[in-house]
Amino acid sequence: MAETAIVTGAYGFLGRHLARALALEGHTVIGIGHGDWSQAQWRSWGLAAWHRSDVTTHVLAALDRPSAVFHCAGGSSVAFSLANPAQDFSRTVGTTLAVLEFLRRHAPRAALVIPSSAAVYGAVRQVPIGVEGPFNPVSPYGAHKKMTEDLCHSYARHFGARIALVRLFSVYGIGLRKQLLWDACIKLAAGDGHFGGHGGEIRDWLHVEDAARLLIVAARHASPACPAVNGGTGEGVTVRDVLTELLAAMAPSALLEFSGTARPGDPDSYVANIAGARAWGWSPREDRTAALRAYASWFTAGAA
Amino acid sequence: MAETAIVTGAYGFLGRHLARALALEGHTVIGIGHGDWSQAQWRSWGLAAWHRSDVTTHVLAALDRPSAVFHCAGGSSVAFSLANPAQDFSRTVGTTLAVLEFLRRHAPRAALVIPSSAAVYGAVRQVPIGVEGPFNPVSPYGAHKKMTEDLCHSYARHFGARIALVRLFSVYGIGLRKQLLWDACIKLAAGDGHFGGHGGEIRDWLHVEDAARLLIVAARHASPACPAVNGGTGEGVTVRDVLTELLAAMAPSALLEFSGTARPGDPDSYVANIAGARAWGWSPREDRTAALRAYASWFTAGAA
Repeated sequence: MAETAIVTGAYGFLGRHLARALALEGHTVIGIGHGDWSQAQWRSWGLAAWHRSDVTTHVLAALDRPSAVFHCAGGSSVAFSLANPAQDFSRTVGTTLAVLEFLRRHAPRAALVIPSSAAVYGAVRQVPIGVEGPFNPVSPYGAHKKMTEDLCHSYARHFGARIALVRLFSVYGIGLRKQLLWDACIKLAAGDGHFGGHGGEIRDWLHVEDAARLLIVAARHASPACPAVNGGTGEGVTVRDVLTELLAAMAPSALLEFSGTARPGDPDSYVANIAGARAWGWSPREDRTAALRAYASWFTAGAA
Repeated sequence: MAETAIVTGAYGFLGRHLARALALEGHTVIGIGHGDWSQAQWRSWGLAAWHRSDVTTHVLAALDRPSAVFHCAGGSSVAFSLANPAQDFSRTVGTTLAVLEFLRRHAPRAALVIPSSAAVYGAVRQVPIGVEGPFNPVSPYGAHKKMTEDLCHSYARHFGARIALVRLFSVYGIGLRKQLLWDACIKLAAGDGHFGGHGGEIRDWLHVEDAARLLIVAARHASPACPAVNGGTGEGVTVRDVLTELLAAMAPSALLEFSGTARPGDPDSYVANIAGARAWGWSPREDRTAALRAYASWFTAGAA
């Protein structure tokens, strides 16, 4: 059964992978957001239509009524949120308010899936991290993601909005042009193996196609109870191990070295408890070593 | 030492009482917000200037640099927030963002005082209510107030904003033209003594002049630690007892009757733990019985 899905932020890394996964399942996918790409490009990512626009209630109301909205638009950088907190707030919380108002006024039966972030947990004392918190965001980005979740709970409770929250951990894959792995590719390609931190920081690396599948599963569980699950593998891998794998695929001659200085606000260990996602029948499939090799190849070939 | 204070929402019940109290302490008080009143009127409430305007960063930046901002603007009605959640969000959270950006960009040393609300606690399991929570807001109004506080914490932590949060309980006094006491005056004046609820609901009634004094004290304690205190008397009084006092002053012939049906989302008991405010050297002064008599007289004389 073909249904219409709206993906906000469909130009972005997560949004485009999600759009393609939805299209492959037979959905008609409408994209909205900012990004300058050709019709051939957005079609290749599975979009049936692309609306280059701010995410507003008004613009959403003019589209075909969807069975689900995936709200991938929003701030995506801790550094940006520190330099431009009001803009990050507007991108993250303001656009979510627009989507929630769209549901309340125009599409009360549509499911809403929010890709939230492990940043809502912030300073973490023990792993694996359960969905119940505590919540101690350590950046405006994380605080705004948490406010987004709180706003969703309010709309779910008072207006019956059907919502699911998915707190994504370290999502990576072909197309990611920022964060640790991207920066590392640039450095390693230049023969530079020096990195900040101590290398022992543990992260939960989730492949973007696994993330996209989880968001699609989440739409089936969206409800006024506004359930939240973690999106990760449940396995913690050190930055040193990930960079070693990347190095092997890219620049075997470089030597990895770490400054030993922890980056402020950078927690030592993030590992997701993924019991909730598993209970929905989802589990991660992608092999990290193969995916990192593919990522390195994509970068080396020009990151097209 | 005369200093400049900005009071947003200075046309409102709390804002105008606060403006007058600040002026009596020798401050130059600039008001900003919506409300149609004459220069003679706003001068009588202690304002040196009145800017009829939305609360925006841009408008604030054009004013004299204040030593303190008291952000009294914002949504003030649970019912309004249920009917117009996006507008309530904008009034409450959006205006706070504008004030915080004003501080970050133009007035980093100014103190910010946020009159928050007991509504951030929502469904309460035990009294007196401590400032540490838990937080279970039961209306969009309460959820938005909580988001306002979270946004303040984020700006305090990341940008050094100097803030104090004061969670006000049931504020009343001459000039209040909504909520239980106002509605009760209208009913009792018409000889109608029928009320919803069971009458045994307990509230912590704080006189608006006590509330204004507490906000002024709070400005001296504003800091990047973003302390929060409760604004109440610490004493719980039933709705029945308060209405009985009002009745005695207004319409001794009416009979109080309660429907017995609890209003949904209306907690049975709200009493503040005011240890934090007392530690700041503040304590409530107004006598409730005398204040209720004055309120009834003001209403009976035409509520001018």
